[in-house]
Amino acid sequence: PSLTGYDKDENEWLWLWDDVPELDMEVGYKVKTLAHYERSAYQEISIAETRAFGRMLVLDGTPQVTEKDGFIYNEMIAHVALAAHPAPARVAMIGGGDCGPAREAAKYADVRSIDVVEIDARVVEACRAWMSPPSAADDGRVRLIYADGCQWLRGRRREYDVLLVDRSDPYGPAAALYKDAFYRDVWEALADDGIAVFQSGSPFCSPGVLKSTARQLRKRFPVVRTYLCAVPSFPGGIWSFTLASKRWDPLNADLARLQWRGARYVNPDVYRASFVLPNYVRELLEWA
Amino acid sequence: PSLTGYDKDENEWLWLWDDVPELDMEVGYKVKTLAHYERSAYQEISIAETRAFGRMLVLDGTPQVTEKDGFIYNEMIAHVALAAHPAPARVAMIGGGDCGPAREAAKYADVRSIDVVEIDARVVEACRAWMSPPSAADDGRVRLIYADGCQWLRGRRREYDVLLVDRSDPYGPAAALYKDAFYRDVWEALADDGIAVFQSGSPFCSPGVLKSTARQLRKRFPVVRTYLCAVPSFPGGIWSFTLASKRWDPLNADLARLQWRGARYVNPDVYRASFVLPNYVRELLEWA
Repeated sequence: PSLTGYDKDENEWLWLWDDVPELDMEVGYKVKTLAHYERSAYQEISIAETRAFGRMLVLDGTPQVTEKDGFIYNEMIAHVALAAHPAPARVAMIGGGDCGPAREAAKYADVRSIDVVEIDARVVEACRAWMSPPSAADDGRVRLIYADGCQWLRGRRREYDVLLVDRSDPYGPAAALYKDAFYRDVWEALADDGIAVFQSGSPFCSPGVLKSTARQLRKRFPVVRTYLCAVPSFPGGIWSFTLASKRWDPLNADLARLQWRGARYVNPDVYRASFVLPNYVRELLEWA
Repeated sequence: PSLTGYDKDENEWLWLWDDVPELDMEVGYKVKTLAHYERSAYQEISIAETRAFGRMLVLDGTPQVTEKDGFIYNEMIAHVALAAHPAPARVAMIGGGDCGPAREAAKYADVRSIDVVEIDARVVEACRAWMSPPSAADDGRVRLIYADGCQWLRGRRREYDVLLVDRSDPYGPAAALYKDAFYRDVWEALADDGIAVFQSGSPFCSPGVLKSTARQLRKRFPVVRTYLCAVPSFPGGIWSFTLASKRWDPLNADLARLQWRGARYVNPDVYRASFVLPNYVRELLEWA
């Protein structure tokens, strides 16, 4: 079939091409096998086996998460808030149908429920069938909710201790997850000492995304902190998350809580170092 | 002319393609203008103006340094050793014909001489003419030595306080800069309290390079420390340097020495955080 993002070279090798239009860049991955392909009600879903990153989950031609480096993003979106909150019982995540962040959240004994809100049930199924490590979708505390994250959140009041916003870039359907009304709904849905974490883009390649995220969160939350990690499969490599908290400051967390044994990226020193920002990121945020 | 690494797309736009053969990956940059092209005695030298990274110095089709993110690599290869040594007077660097690391070294008042050893005079000239910020080649303390770095080093005895090895990947002519004889020559060329810093590859994409660098240095130097930074234009993003010291430990440096004002990446917190390694890098080095 004709598949967005894929083409064959002159030797009949299949390649996956990730366009970065705002940088006039393209990143190509040679595909060993196309493990899976389907067109769901929402998008084209494929799983490409690559040498660089193992199996990649690809939605409408854009790589989302890979077997070889997915641990970095998944650990860093989840562990920081779960360690910063002293007793996170009710956790929700918007996006992340691969259930990687849910797997990390499940390592915390205080967590009683993990609501994963994903619009496309087929993404969850494809990851369960084809990606490793095994999906967390079968953990007893995980509840899968197939809904539009933005609509699902609206009207919830003080229901969650930790909310992870594993949103894609601010184009198409994900654009609503970058709007003022969404940030207001996040505030409302969080408990009085709740913490939210937002994927906030590459500070180098899309500084505007990070700036506007910080600016909007500062209007509402007393504690707003940006932290960084390096994800090799993301163009630009350096990636930001922005944490917004009603009470707890992640810089004062009791890191004995951090469930880092068995983790492949995070440990207490990495937790602390992730909040240290290079001058160019610091300046960007001062002027946000 | 036919230029290694460049081709035109169906709309006649010029693209530069950076191959990463060990990962079966390609990264393409749309080229706004080709500012400069020449064939020197050693290689094809070109300067491509791109949207993603501004002007890029390209040697034989491989991007080396860019206007927009070159500051990260240049600051991080230079400042750590220059701050860790309490009085670095005699500095040398192998490679780095763009003189970016030399520019950073020149910020230290104790530094009396900066020997830049570069095989190809045309690289220095092309950067002086076409790249920004302005080349440090005209600083009074910089001495340009056009020679093969490996041969130039051999036989030097206790001549340098700081030696920066800005080597390219371990293929072709640069392969000698990864051999045991070279590490021995570095030890000999350093003063009794000298410090050397080696570009040691991406811990994610080429872990073997980092491992063998650490292994070989530990055979000779009492203090060996790997530190990281994130360079958006390098495939994989996360990058390592390995510092080898005869006496001074960079973790005990007096960071009042660090000349970070005006720097765009490094500051005292970033200096310290750069030595914090994610678990997967820590494990890699434990088994090196």
